[in-house]
Amino acid sequence: MAGTVNVALIGYAFMGKAHSNAYRQVTPFMSPRLEPRMKVICGRTQDKLEAAAHQYGWEETSTDWRATVRRTDIDLVDISTPGDLHAEIAIAAARAGKAVFCEKPLANSVAEARKMVAAVEKAGVVHMICHNYRRIPAVLLAKQLIDSGRIGTIRHFRGTYLQDWIADPMFPLVWRLDREQAGSGALGDLGAHVVDLARFLVGEITEVSGHLETFVQERPLAANSRKRGRVTVDDASIALACFENGAIGTIEATRMAPGRKNWNRFEINGSKGTVAFDLERMNELEVYLESDDVEVRGFHRVLATEPEHPLVKSWWPPGHVIGYEHTFIHTVYDLLEAMADGRVPSPNFHDGLKNQLVLAAIEKSATTRRWVSV
Amino acid sequence: MAGTVNVALIGYAFMGKAHSNAYRQVTPFMSPRLEPRMKVICGRTQDKLEAAAHQYGWEETSTDWRATVRRTDIDLVDISTPGDLHAEIAIAAARAGKAVFCEKPLANSVAEARKMVAAVEKAGVVHMICHNYRRIPAVLLAKQLIDSGRIGTIRHFRGTYLQDWIADPMFPLVWRLDREQAGSGALGDLGAHVVDLARFLVGEITEVSGHLETFVQERPLAANSRKRGRVTVDDASIALACFENGAIGTIEATRMAPGRKNWNRFEINGSKGTVAFDLERMNELEVYLESDDVEVRGFHRVLATEPEHPLVKSWWPPGHVIGYEHTFIHTVYDLLEAMADGRVPSPNFHDGLKNQLVLAAIEKSATTRRWVSV
Amino acid sequence: MAGTVNVALIGYAFMGKAHSNAYRQVTPFMSPRLEPRMKVICGRTQDKLEAAAHQYGWEETSTDWRATVRRTDIDLVDISTPGDLHAEIAIAAARAGKAVFCEKPLANSVAEARKMVAAVEKAGVVHMICHNYRRIPAVLLAKQLIDSGRIGTIRHFRGTYLQDWIADPMFPLVWRLDREQAGSGALGDLGAHVVDLARFLVGEITEVSGHLETFVQERPLAANSRKRGRVTVDDASIALACFENGAIGTIEATRMAPGRKNWNRFEINGSKGTVAFDLERMNELEVYLESDDVEVRGFHRVLATEPEHPLVKSWWPPGHVIGYEHTFIHTVYDLLEAMADGRVPSPNFHDGLKNQLVLAAIEKSATTRRWVSV
Amino acid sequence: MAGTVNVALIGYAFMGKAHSNAYRQVTPFMSPRLEPRMKVICGRTQDKLEAAAHQYGWEETSTDWRATVRRTDIDLVDISTPGDLHAEIAIAAARAGKAVFCEKPLANSVAEARKMVAAVEKAGVVHMICHNYRRIPAVLLAKQLIDSGRIGTIRHFRGTYLQDWIADPMFPLVWRLDREQAGSGALGDLGAHVVDLARFLVGEITEVSGHLETFVQERPLAANSRKRGRVTVDDASIALACFENGAIGTIEATRMAPGRKNWNRFEINGSKGTVAFDLERMNELEVYLESDDVEVRGFHRVLATEPEHPLVKSWWPPGHVIGYEHTFIHTVYDLLEAMADGRVPSPNFHDGLKNQLVLAAIEKSATTRRWVSV
Repeated sequence: MAGTVNVALIGYAFMGKAHSNAYRQVTPFMSPRLEPRMKVICGRTQDKLEAAAHQYGWEETSTDWRATVRRTDIDLVDISTPGDLHAEIAIAAARAGKAVFCEKPLANSVAEARKMVAAVEKAGVVHMICHNYRRIPAVLLAKQLIDSGRIGTIRHFRGTYLQDWIADPMFPLVWRLDREQAGSGALGDLGAHVVDLARFLVGEITEVSGHLETFVQERPLAANSRKRGRVTVDDASIALACFENGAIGTIEATRMAPGRKNWNRFEINGSKGTVAFDLERMNELEVYLESDDVEVRGFHRVLATEPEHPLVKSWWPPGHVIGYEHTFIHTVYDLLEAMADGRVPSPNFHDGLKNQLVLAAIEKSATTRRWVSV
Repeated sequence: MAGTVNVALIGYAFMGKAHSNAYRQVTPFMSPRLEPRMKVICGRTQDKLEAAAHQYGWEETSTDWRATVRRTDIDLVDISTPGDLHAEIAIAAARAGKAVFCEKPLANSVAEARKMVAAVEKAGVVHMICHNYRRIPAVLLAKQLIDSGRIGTIRHFRGTYLQDWIADPMFPLVWRLDREQAGSGALGDLGAHVVDLARFLVGEITEVSGHLETFVQERPLAANSRKRGRVTVDDASIALACFENGAIGTIEATRMAPGRKNWNRFEINGSKGTVAFDLERMNELEVYLESDDVEVRGFHRVLATEPEHPLVKSWWPPGHVIGYEHTFIHTVYDLLEAMADGRVPSPNFHDGLKNQLVLAAIEKSATTRRWVSV
Repeated sequence: MAGTVNVALIGYAFMGKAHSNAYRQVTPFMSPRLEPRMKVICGRTQDKLEAAAHQYGWEETSTDWRATVRRTDIDLVDISTPGDLHAEIAIAAARAGKAVFCEKPLANSVAEARKMVAAVEKAGVVHMICHNYRRIPAVLLAKQLIDSGRIGTIRHFRGTYLQDWIADPMFPLVWRLDREQAGSGALGDLGAHVVDLARFLVGEITEVSGHLETFVQERPLAANSRKRGRVTVDDASIALACFENGAIGTIEATRMAPGRKNWNRFEINGSKGTVAFDLERMNELEVYLESDDVEVRGFHRVLATEPEHPLVKSWWPPGHVIGYEHTFIHTVYDLLEAMADGRVPSPNFHDGLKNQLVLAAIEKSATTRRWVSV
Repeated sequence: MAGTVNVALIGYAFMGKAHSNAYRQVTPFMSPRLEPRMKVICGRTQDKLEAAAHQYGWEETSTDWRATVRRTDIDLVDISTPGDLHAEIAIAAARAGKAVFCEKPLANSVAEARKMVAAVEKAGVVHMICHNYRRIPAVLLAKQLIDSGRIGTIRHFRGTYLQDWIADPMFPLVWRLDREQAGSGALGDLGAHVVDLARFLVGEITEVSGHLETFVQERPLAANSRKRGRVTVDDASIALACFENGAIGTIEATRMAPGRKNWNRFEINGSKGTVAFDLERMNELEVYLESDDVEVRGFHRVLATEPEHPLVKSWWPPGHVIGYEHTFIHTVYDLLEAMADGRVPSPNFHDGLKNQLVLAAIEKSATTRRWVSV
């Protein structure tokens, strides 16, 4: 590899844009030992693909991802497609001996996810799943405080990921609302993030009780269309969870909460303190410590932009905030560093599979109306 | 009655203090048609009772509540005792033809609650349960916005009542942690408030899935004691809920959330907007309206202290906030007004019973590990 | 006196209501050694006075304050009239040997204030000025933190008292907008509070540069009136200040800040930390401490409702907030305790005079366009 | 130019890093008609310069800025040096016919600033000053609301830029604390931003009264050094201001406010509403509108990340926040668009000069202790 990682990116939509930016920005700001080279971007529609390649700075384009992942000059395959393609691409890439970086959720089913894990394991390649919110400095600070014991024994997790983009019943039936294409609705899209943060910060979930709801069951086929079609995924999901370490939690995901644009919020209560985070104010962590003197005890609003905070010193001076896209840059940095070390970073396909098992248990519980073991 | 209501208060602890204050303050500030007269306060320990009577301004004391509730000069019996005495007192008072004002939860069991409802119904007396948080101006504003349709069809309820006073495992085994005396733990104490607000603002709950947890199972019998005893109530409870009108919700109560002192928070998402409230900032309501112009759409922080807001104009000019005790004064005002009209106010014993049915369903579900119909 | 203080209250409007409540509530909640007895309320209009006496619980009424302050059975004269009467009443009361409790500002001019100080000094009576915001638990906590040195050397004071009730140019020309009656506008009404908090928390002000502005110079004489009259006081005042101890500050008061209902906010920066307060959230203090571990350093949101916080344990459990009226109850408590001790409490007429000197210097500076020494 | 702008950047420190990033990012995200080409970066120290060129992606380096600005293949000269070099470089670049983009403050003196304005005017080149905070979507939203009249007649400006990096008296005497090199302290560094936002949002300032303070007059020459040197700039500045349109304001800048990391906050009150902004939460604007229905009137927390908000749709979906560096990208975008149109963008050197005139008036006022006309 000699200091460079040649990347093939499959997909050029929202996630393609975010990943492209990560490859472009990681070297100037974070100086990984291996530098990514934006070699080739793959997609189905040639003209859009050309435009994306030009705009985001990819050297080549290809409409044949199968050929691309086998190219000997490619080191890393980045899967930023919709979920229904993840498994096939990841397995092909692993077989070709490439490192694989895959968007979440890992797959559209547990069965697929298991095959993907088997493939990367068998091939012995580096693999990572893009749960980018783990790389927010404020979230990493929460992790540090928990791991250091300053919050004490964890008892409560309270995770909600709220959005509002389909609150209006006239919002049309986009592909994300079709089970065939999207796998699931709010649960897989947003709930997967909550489950990942729960696993990252608290530990493994052993049992769940869940409920899924589709409030708007029919929608216009397109904006201003009179024809309507059936929504086949959940608008919202709510669940209770028990953790291996004795903590309990609530997990909620919805696209139906007016005013909540990207409200990925968690609160974790331990025996000695609390941490709370909200993605809409992603540079901040709220911290409560029983160890503070009683008269000044209160939630600290920590602006996680100090050089002592994780990752953030690559950027700007204290108080100069970073944004959404930085979470991808940090994730790609850790991927590149892992590749330099020849190790599998975290979170990886095992995490993706475990996440999927939790989501599947929630779905099953929603049907059986009983608690389900993960 | 001739313009005056003679009150007998049973109980002189925390709630006795709050109710006494309500009787003292309601006339100067709210001018109810009927004025309460603080006639007699009842309790078991004569010297403490005398001190309370003097401090809070009661004319007489009695250690015999049975005799007191039969006194012909008493119009209203206020039950501020622990829950295990509610049923007996309320039934006796109803039989004596008195109006009955009872602290929440209505009783320690559904069976008792049913008997209480039957008694007041049979006697035809005025009855009310003290769910004082319904009388917070900001909560009433939420109610108005919901009832007017400005929030649209309700889809989500998210209610958490978090406190932290037993987070420390060395906190002693007080009576509230003993099932015999307290009935239940966080569920009945705090969860009852969440359920009441859910019923008040969203509607009836039809089905629940719940989980109870006792994180600290043994505690010192007293501060600095080496002897330990068993905690027999829940430290925390979490539940999912389905509402009659199609909304879904989460209901959580815990005494184990460091930093949350009195965090009775709810958020309600409708199809057209959202309202959110937190008791620690009880003069404020957060309101999001899809009807706002798009560029200024955002959560309004409404300081519910304007003359146009419910109840609050009895107090001070805009921006001059009120506190916890005012919720009782407002509740007593509505009770007195109902007595003047000869009608049963809301919330009343029927609400107390319905609340209890929800709590009982959560407890049952926690055992059966299945959804339970209310 | 034998354990009781007989009070004569002059004035029954907004402040009369607040002071009456303080006398009614101080004993049940705070148990001062001397109990106030609400003896007589004075005013000019007999029927309104009767109504106020009945509503607030005064035993007698009088339309002759001069006779009242000389009554041998009166111990304490409470002056809650508009400012133009303060001096005459206070001097008469002092000459009659009564303790005097006077609303702020002490007088409408420095000359009057000096006479008042001389009178109470000569008579040797207890005197107090009602700067009630000094008695907010969160403000007292700020004071404790400053006095203990935890904030370090004070460098900055930033005080703003913002309201919005005359932002609309059609708001009528009430008496508060007439210099003859009101003395001054935002400066004397709101700015006096800021100056008092600055003096209480930071120290004496030695020099100021100020500016006064009347944005709306003519207003309708009454609601819906076509006739207009001239506004003769300031709508807003802004000032720079230098303190004796080397700190510098800004002092602002306005009635023209839409959305700010009662925004009495200060921030004080020391060499080791910061405290910040806002009256609209009067149960909270924001505290920043350089002594916190660097990774959790951030503003603490302290809910000043713990038993360890000043004054507040007289009320309710942690997290159960108090309101505006409690500031008067706390002030009256300290007055009564001072009377029991036979000492002059703080803030007293000397503070009132010093406050007035600062306001006068700001007014003078606004005219001379230069810094003015206090 | 044929679609490309060849850029020469002078300076590779903090601002050099921020500007480099802007040139790299503007095309992928914002597609300006002219694409910047990162041609040459200039500095004094060859090895550091090489490192910066490599890291940030510049094609060439040069230690001779004079030669560079005359190169025929350079279209745009970007001045990111300390202030003492601005004038010389800008004038040379203008004479060479280059577009000039200069960091703020424009110069270290009014005299220099005037020469710079004269030079760009005479040369007829495009010129811009980098007041990047004008390009924050939330700030631009404030501007739109003000310009549309929704806030009404502006009456109050309240601007504070607070930082805390020299609060500790042991922080060493860095070049920014030396008047020779830095021109001024908090006033020129932070106050210049406040003045620019005041001019942008409210209008021209006509008169000021100011005060400068150096709290810590001697500091260690370096970390852990025993030798001390004299601080020759202000630690803090406070000022009152009158605006041409009748508004009044306060302007404060300090590096001595513990906990305020990058607290560039303003609040603007008009006759019909208020806007407030804080750089630490730069994606949000607080908006209060008298036109809201009275019962829901309150500050809107607007997350300025909707496609309807200025500039932000180039980035991510609603609720996905941007950071500090984006302000430079937006500024460079507007510069490139102006170059494509052959017009001078805003803010430009005229704004830089006017800003400097206000700062100079504040400094003069601090000496004369009188109001000074700008």
